[in-house]
Amino acid sequence: MKTSFLKDQIISKNSFLCLGLDSDINKIPLFLLEESDPIFSFNKLLLDALNELIVSVKINTAFYEVHGSKGWETLEKTIDYINNTYPNLFTIADAKRGDIGNTSDMYARAFFSHMKFDSITVSPYMGNDSIEPFLDYNDKHTILLGLTSNNGANDFQYSTNSDQDLFKKVLIKSQEWKNSNNLMYVVGATKASFLKDVRLIVPNSFLLIPGVGAQGGSLEDTFKNGVNDQIGILVNSSRSIIYAGNDKNFLKKSYLEAKKIQSKMCVLLNNIND
Amino acid sequence: MKTSFLKDQIISKNSFLCLGLDSDINKIPLFLLEESDPIFSFNKLLLDALNELIVSVKINTAFYEVHGSKGWETLEKTIDYINNTYPNLFTIADAKRGDIGNTSDMYARAFFSHMKFDSITVSPYMGNDSIEPFLDYNDKHTILLGLTSNNGANDFQYSTNSDQDLFKKVLIKSQEWKNSNNLMYVVGATKASFLKDVRLIVPNSFLLIPGVGAQGGSLEDTFKNGVNDQIGILVNSSRSIIYAGNDKNFLKKSYLEAKKIQSKMCVLLNNIND
Repeated sequence: MKTSFLKDQIISKNSFLCLGLDSDINKIPLFLLEESDPIFSFNKLLLDALNELIVSVKINTAFYEVHGSKGWETLEKTIDYINNTYPNLFTIADAKRGDIGNTSDMYARAFFSHMKFDSITVSPYMGNDSIEPFLDYNDKHTILLGLTSNNGANDFQYSTNSDQDLFKKVLIKSQEWKNSNNLMYVVGATKASFLKDVRLIVPNSFLLIPGVGAQGGSLEDTFKNGVNDQIGILVNSSRSIIYAGNDKNFLKKSYLEAKKIQSKMCVLLNNIND
Repeated sequence: MKTSFLKDQIISKNSFLCLGLDSDINKIPLFLLEESDPIFSFNKLLLDALNELIVSVKINTAFYEVHGSKGWETLEKTIDYINNTYPNLFTIADAKRGDIGNTSDMYARAFFSHMKFDSITVSPYMGNDSIEPFLDYNDKHTILLGLTSNNGANDFQYSTNSDQDLFKKVLIKSQEWKNSNNLMYVVGATKASFLKDVRLIVPNSFLLIPGVGAQGGSLEDTFKNGVNDQIGILVNSSRSIIYAGNDKNFLKKSYLEAKKIQSKMCVLLNNIND
């Protein structure tokens, strides 16, 4: 999926919301446990209810791997269902992969060819030859960790000298890599002021932004500092939407929570043209 | 598995060789394609032939994920086979995982509880709370990427000022994390002189060392600069052993290749006591 198409979807749906399917068997409504594949049923119900409010779906692989090969089947069923039923949704495998070239090549084949995700999150630590096998796929996007939203981001991503912040080095260096136009970046919203620094370095890239809401980031500040002329941002929300309810009426609560966020996004998007 | 046990195994087998099962359906001997699960058959034959020459097995998850849920079944069958048949082998899930806390917790459960690996490789980029869920497992080991053997290592792991090398910062900082005694480190052999620097920072930790042989590192230099009083090093070899042959006699060639490396290791280990 091209980012121009993603921008069109954002404008058309008045939403830059990404739904995170961090689907945990211990947190889904109890009545779903009677289904043959409870997590797939949970995902399907959420997608059917929320697809008009979102432009993207992020599937966190850890929540599927924890169930072994059965969980991997659920992952495959979920991505197939999205691709067949809602092909306009931009799909993200939140997998944080990255390894030496011949191994990253296998990961790229797993997520891009076998499962047909539109994009995958990857970790920059091993440098260019660990990422370029993903970038080789010209119709796909590779979402590099820049600045993450967790406390541990302080350990390595910043420096005592802000000119030498590792996350800035990652943004700058990655722009030199082959097919770098296929890159997007993860930039956490918990410190929205950093988004200004990010936009100085990568003005044109799409950003995947976690950490709005539960983790404390403000949607308005995120938008103000992150938006570009392609819109250029996807804001992810996982737990606050998918676990908004826990009984037979959970979908209504999830819908209202997603609608609340999408309504704010609608206002922000419409204000661009004022 | 405790590292004291691993040291005993090294002494007993005169080997610190780790066998890397980067098992690629396009590279295994053709006659195995008649088997119901060719990669499992390939792995089983290699393990049965080589178990006396090795102390550890590293399974590269990418080569299994590329086959989807079927590949994940092969991964599960392989780790079960090792745990049931060769429980003294130290098992490594070479997965390069790492994410925010609740997600890393899922990965730890996947690899430590569900599949019962002894250890997993993880990426440091997201810092302490992305790694501590793995370190919580006291009978397991968490192998943090320090200095990798690929060219891309130059992008971020070094600095123009060697005091500020990121890989050194990773080694130093990680020693402050909760349960850091469960850490091991990946340190590539391609620049063996760096092993001296590594040993100044983490004198007591076990190191997983790729890059000997095919990637150009010298076993002798690696040993000289990396060995400690627990021996403290595992040297991995993957492709040069498992693809030594490509016909019905491939096991003999794989055995000879592994034996060649183990014989050198035997000499090095015996020279310690001279």
